[in-house]
Amino acid sequence: MPVRMDSAETRFRVRYAETDQMGVVYYSNYMIWMEVGRVEWCKRFARNYRDMESEDGILLAVAECHCRYLAPARFDDEIVVKTWLERADPRLLTFAYEIRLAGVDQRLATGFTRHIILDKAFRRARLPAKYFAMFGVEKAAQ
Amino acid sequence: MPVRMDSAETRFRVRYAETDQMGVVYYSNYMIWMEVGRVEWCKRFARNYRDMESEDGILLAVAECHCRYLAPARFDDEIVVKTWLERADPRLLTFAYEIRLAGVDQRLATGFTRHIILDKAFRRARLPAKYFAMFGVEKAAQ
Amino acid sequence: MPVRMDSAETRFRVRYAETDQMGVVYYSNYMIWMEVGRVEWCKRFARNYRDMESEDGILLAVAECHCRYLAPARFDDEIVVKTWLERADPRLLTFAYEIRLAGVDQRLATGFTRHIILDKAFRRARLPAKYFAMFGVEKAAQ
Amino acid sequence: MPVRMDSAETRFRVRYAETDQMGVVYYSNYMIWMEVGRVEWCKRFARNYRDMESEDGILLAVAECHCRYLAPARFDDEIVVKTWLERADPRLLTFAYEIRLAGVDQRLATGFTRHIILDKAFRRARLPAKYFAMFGVEKAAQ
Repeated sequence: MPVRMDSAETRFRVRYAETDQMGVVYYSNYMIWMEVGRVEWCKRFARNYRDMESEDGILLAVAECHCRYLAPARFDDEIVVKTWLERADPRLLTFAYEIRLAGVDQRLATGFTRHIILDKAFRRARLPAKYFAMFGVEKAAQ
Repeated sequence: MPVRMDSAETRFRVRYAETDQMGVVYYSNYMIWMEVGRVEWCKRFARNYRDMESEDGILLAVAECHCRYLAPARFDDEIVVKTWLERADPRLLTFAYEIRLAGVDQRLATGFTRHIILDKAFRRARLPAKYFAMFGVEKAAQ
Repeated sequence: MPVRMDSAETRFRVRYAETDQMGVVYYSNYMIWMEVGRVEWCKRFARNYRDMESEDGILLAVAECHCRYLAPARFDDEIVVKTWLERADPRLLTFAYEIRLAGVDQRLATGFTRHIILDKAFRRARLPAKYFAMFGVEKAAQ
Repeated sequence: MPVRMDSAETRFRVRYAETDQMGVVYYSNYMIWMEVGRVEWCKRFARNYRDMESEDGILLAVAECHCRYLAPARFDDEIVVKTWLERADPRLLTFAYEIRLAGVDQRLATGFTRHIILDKAFRRARLPAKYFAMFGVEKAAQ
């Protein structure tokens, strides 16, 4: 299943609020960072996610999430989130992520999120055809 | 200005996620605790806030917030949030809070939040008359 | 691998802060709820996690996390987190979770977290022997 | 009381996680944004806050916080936090903030935070003399 292999990179610094008493970033914040990564991916390669929601009435609801933590992130670290689309069909999109420490060659975490498409009434829906090319959805999958 | 002097108390334990690398609760979490307190107050003395939003189309938007931090809260501490309505008129509600450590007689924080009433379209609105008695809004203020 | 099959249940209400503009609970909050669940499990069946950290210098660092989202949770819903220990050896603990809506028989999410044991200096460590029975670590695994 | 009148500006986009079911940013996130602003201020005009904590053992604990909310922020909005030091003496620092929507001339919020200086053992302390010039602490106040 061919998908857009382009990846987007987003950078930001760890906020004090994101640390916990272990002195490192609390684990649920990586899911927020994944969101920051895929919003950037959509903006760059597909469509502004804000407009997908408000203009096309499409919601990408998270159906599954996985994260492997390899090394801790600390306050004020510069983080790089690399995001790409791993799988795309009209009913399910899978984004993959690699979270690294900027500058040095160190991976902090890897993970993925799977998203189902919902309409405004929270019913299962298909990705509108106009998005197929952007998300690399294959003809066969339609 | 007479208001409902009843106060509501809510109890819960500090979550690990709420601590930061100082080893104590990060300061923005007290605003979330205030919300937990006023949701409980509304449920007990006025109306379920969920229904105020969904059935009457009323939003209590935060217009101002203040908190004084007196002593740190730590992971797994049992917290008591005491909430009362300090001022109420048809366009503005002020809730006050005292946050204490359960068991011992120690105050951790005090604060208040002021709320304006908005309709679903985010326009300034008045509290519906049916809420006047619940919130102790005075005749003169109407 | 025999482990403690006891499960702990924790209950709380969805906070307004936990919702997002979709009108449902934002997905990273489920990881925080898992933490609430496993803190309760430890307190009930093993040892207060606060004391494990402060007195024995043991950290249970999250190495992996997975969540499947089955139905959305909404503001003020009463949530039940059922937590049990799925696997335990001296270097790795796996907790599993079922998150349900209280009252009705509806599962909202299932997931697991894997934890490595670290000492205060963030070096890989073994679970102290005195915890073996509490966590159901098998002789053979030692 | 003369203080450093320089202000620092930080920019970032609203995260989906920061919105709530009203469709706007939940109010406690502004305190996190203030933190992002003052970390930037310290880095630019005084000293990296990370180093103040780790090398000098100084903690700037929040003793008071105030925020006035003027207009809602929404998902993906670009936010500008302008931070300056409003008052500085060896025992108390007051930072002030103006939070605006980038591009247009709209203020979203204003606020301040007061910080006491603590040592690693959480005892009240004085700002080390080497910081006086950076923070604009007056001779008379010493």
